[in-house]
Amino acid sequence: MIGIGVDAGGTFIKFVAVGDNCRVLDRAQAHTPATGGEFVGVISERILQWKRELGGRLCAAMGFAGAVDFERGVVHKAPNIPCIENLNIAEQVKKRTGIPCVLDNDANMAAWGAYAYDLKEKYPTVITVTLGTGVGGGLVLDGELFRGATGAAAEIGHMNIEPGGRRCPCGGRGCLEAYCGKHGIIARARSAYAAAGKKIPDGIDPLWLAEAAESGDKAALELWRKTGEYLGYGLGNACVLLSPDAIVFTGGLSGAKKFFMPAVEKVFADWAMDTAFRHVKLKVSRFPNLGSMGAALYARHCCRK
Amino acid sequence: MIGIGVDAGGTFIKFVAVGDNCRVLDRAQAHTPATGGEFVGVISERILQWKRELGGRLCAAMGFAGAVDFERGVVHKAPNIPCIENLNIAEQVKKRTGIPCVLDNDANMAAWGAYAYDLKEKYPTVITVTLGTGVGGGLVLDGELFRGATGAAAEIGHMNIEPGGRRCPCGGRGCLEAYCGKHGIIARARSAYAAAGKKIPDGIDPLWLAEAAESGDKAALELWRKTGEYLGYGLGNACVLLSPDAIVFTGGLSGAKKFFMPAVEKVFADWAMDTAFRHVKLKVSRFPNLGSMGAALYARHCCRK
Repeated sequence: MIGIGVDAGGTFIKFVAVGDNCRVLDRAQAHTPATGGEFVGVISERILQWKRELGGRLCAAMGFAGAVDFERGVVHKAPNIPCIENLNIAEQVKKRTGIPCVLDNDANMAAWGAYAYDLKEKYPTVITVTLGTGVGGGLVLDGELFRGATGAAAEIGHMNIEPGGRRCPCGGRGCLEAYCGKHGIIARARSAYAAAGKKIPDGIDPLWLAEAAESGDKAALELWRKTGEYLGYGLGNACVLLSPDAIVFTGGLSGAKKFFMPAVEKVFADWAMDTAFRHVKLKVSRFPNLGSMGAALYARHCCRK
Repeated sequence: MIGIGVDAGGTFIKFVAVGDNCRVLDRAQAHTPATGGEFVGVISERILQWKRELGGRLCAAMGFAGAVDFERGVVHKAPNIPCIENLNIAEQVKKRTGIPCVLDNDANMAAWGAYAYDLKEKYPTVITVTLGTGVGGGLVLDGELFRGATGAAAEIGHMNIEPGGRRCPCGGRGCLEAYCGKHGIIARARSAYAAAGKKIPDGIDPLWLAEAAESGDKAALELWRKTGEYLGYGLGNACVLLSPDAIVFTGGLSGAKKFFMPAVEKVFADWAMDTAFRHVKLKVSRFPNLGSMGAALYARHCCRK
């Protein structure tokens, strides 16, 4: 069985074909087209090409950034790819290719990737946290993706860590993302540097702050420590609620793990009601595009059932 | 199929026999014995008596306050019934009675009661919150009890709502229980009344505070409002993570719902990332002993599978 994973973004669509033991058989990439019809065409063509070249039984799964109805195979809201909203893409691709196809949001596909690729399906309950522009998440509970009543479960970035706190891009106040998403980190850095009477260049990003920490800058080190503390409280609450086997970090900012992870570990170690924390493994994903890999492995999982 | 539910506490063991459509066929109660052997004897005798009297197929489930290994049918830690710790009770009862028997913690059995009795299994994802001396919880996710990696999931009372905040009986600081458990509510009431220059009797309990609120006492009304606000932030985080269909409140303090529930609803209504909140039903359980009812219905569920 070959799983084809599709990760559809606003600029590119990434494809990967994965065989047994998570072996990558081939990869591809295409520009995201401007119409829904072309979109279905581009994806179907890629699948049909691999059907000819790779042979055997195939199945596919697609991940989208947006609000998804998994059961119906429809994307309700996709701010970066509006042309596909409310199209029955999964069904159309299936019809064009003859290959079973499911569709989900990209955070869920990344979560499946963390569970099935990084952790080899060894642990049934895994929380995945994506640290990037936003703070996203996905849940695998008892070996299955968990979507909740509305499909909107695992909005880890919008757990509240400080009522009335920092303004979040969602419009709320005090969300985890308001502190640990890219913009929150930059805004906190500006305040911290200003308070310390230190200069900070315009247009800095978290990479700059990771480099500053690397060079021993105390303000940057403290900023990452505090970021870890916020993550520790947010994810600690998730642990108390779900008692996971593991938490896997992914996304661009997870590369700064050595600067924030010790503070996450400290919050966890200090939690008095510690049962749920004793066995939690904290990992950073090893795979650069977990969304497409996760989709490929999830396609295989759906066809096994 | 008749489900026998057992709710074992430090003073009494409560029994209920439940038939189709949640119909209560009989109830019983016994003093909690002092030794593990007698404990197994009392439960087995009750089951055997109903086996003779009620006939048909029977199955049983037992709920304990403590740390439970569901798979092995063993209670690791039961502060109120130490004589049963590490006994293979489920297996012994099964051997003595010939009736299939499972064992779980009482919060999980209450959660199953909320799911199966209060909500008639209509909603797959339900969070149950027990408001009493402590703040406990249980999760039914996609129609199954969820226990997590350690069996310690759903420790809702020990989610942190204020880092470094009020001292909690667990030894930590800032847990939800430190604000909304019985002792937290009383301590907050003492501070609030003192700050308002008002007298408060010694030995008050939450019932006194509910009566004070009922009579229009502003300090008491504000205390319950604030209690609802704390619950709103704690449970709001659980909603963002799990997107449940419903939250069911049970336990002695849930009777004060009219004083705290509007504040829970307000926190939910004001959450900017609102997808997970749009369909959440907030309920108070109608059944006085949800633990034994839930156990009886869970026994039936396990035998159906």
